[in-house]
Amino acid sequence: MQSSPLTPGDPAAARADGGRTGRVPRAEREQQMLDAAVLVFSRRGFHHANMDEIAELSGVSKPMVYAYLGTKEELFIACLRRESARLVSGLAAAADPTLPPDQQLWRGLKGFFEFVGAHRDGWSVLYRQARTQQPFSAEISRMREAVVEVITDRLDGALRQEGRQVKPDDLTAMALTLVGASESLADWLADHPDEDPGRTATRLMNAVWLGADQLMRGSTWRPPTP
Amino acid sequence: MQSSPLTPGDPAAARADGGRTGRVPRAEREQQMLDAAVLVFSRRGFHHANMDEIAELSGVSKPMVYAYLGTKEELFIACLRRESARLVSGLAAAADPTLPPDQQLWRGLKGFFEFVGAHRDGWSVLYRQARTQQPFSAEISRMREAVVEVITDRLDGALRQEGRQVKPDDLTAMALTLVGASESLADWLADHPDEDPGRTATRLMNAVWLGADQLMRGSTWRPPTP
Repeated sequence: MQSSPLTPGDPAAARADGGRTGRVPRAEREQQMLDAAVLVFSRRGFHHANMDEIAELSGVSKPMVYAYLGTKEELFIACLRRESARLVSGLAAAADPTLPPDQQLWRGLKGFFEFVGAHRDGWSVLYRQARTQQPFSAEISRMREAVVEVITDRLDGALRQEGRQVKPDDLTAMALTLVGASESLADWLADHPDEDPGRTATRLMNAVWLGADQLMRGSTWRPPTP
Repeated sequence: MQSSPLTPGDPAAARADGGRTGRVPRAEREQQMLDAAVLVFSRRGFHHANMDEIAELSGVSKPMVYAYLGTKEELFIACLRRESARLVSGLAAAADPTLPPDQQLWRGLKGFFEFVGAHRDGWSVLYRQARTQQPFSAEISRMREAVVEVITDRLDGALRQEGRQVKPDDLTAMALTLVGASESLADWLADHPDEDPGRTATRLMNAVWLGADQLMRGSTWRPPTP
């Protein structure tokens, strides 16, 4: 689920270094460990992920991983938090609030499904698996709440521009509809390697933007031509 | 989450009976145990539910509960299966396929949210909590697949009546959109005692039937007057 290629240091040099971090600033070293951890968790799943492999991939000793980021469980939570933060800020940036509402929604959905499509294994492990296990499911709930908040704000803004003011509960329910539908289709996308993420986003636009009534009559929403 | 009031037998009589089932047919006795188990699991949660309380409520001895329905985990799974089967057949019956598509959807959604609204604790325990725990999450996935199948069939039927034929993947994606959105709003409904289930169903109809585009313009879908 990492968005940049892995950039592990030289394991031999790191070990010769006795595990000290003089060569690489701590923050940067932590990001390297998280990159490696996301990759290993995504490939092996939480239970089969191995701290030795994570340490080796990030070019440090295993004790250094423990010292920096804690137990395997804490490391997994750190991965969830970083990836969640990336996803939420990515969505907020993609859905540029100066655009018309359908374009905001389209860009947000497209960005989301592209993220899932580019990291299908990561989605399965970091989100879907985490969702079904305590204490990780609490992290997932927090991420979900952050996404609901972004969408609620945008909906509110879009409706106010149309001169309409909608009650907070109504906005929340609309955002939850969108989030629930998106999660459901993201799971499906993760299971279908042939599905194009842009196509998934278009499916959802058709369902929620255009309305089933219109769909039944044969009209479909089409993404804007670039 | 039980749909009928509890009908426990007389505990004293059952115990005097030495745990035999001569008085009550086995199938009926099992349903009584399941009624009691659903009630206790809903109130206490899986981990704090107590087999003694379940036995007492169903008017039998604890060994008889174990003999009939197995361990606490097996009993919980039996509850999930029975409630799922009720929900799925309830949805299929509510969404009478001879009705126009919007009425089918409306009745299906209304039935679903009324079920959740009438059993908010049950929803939280039997569905939401089960979804986050192995091995229960596998049961939830099966129920979800059954619901997706019912919706896919109904969508296909409705579209064919309009002379349109839609690819299986498109139908599945539409059903998953609806199921994901419904789950998301059901969780919200379970947390909001003041929310009326019919209102929740109307919110979702507005989102998926009418389309956000129409909503933005201020039009709303209204349930039919009885």
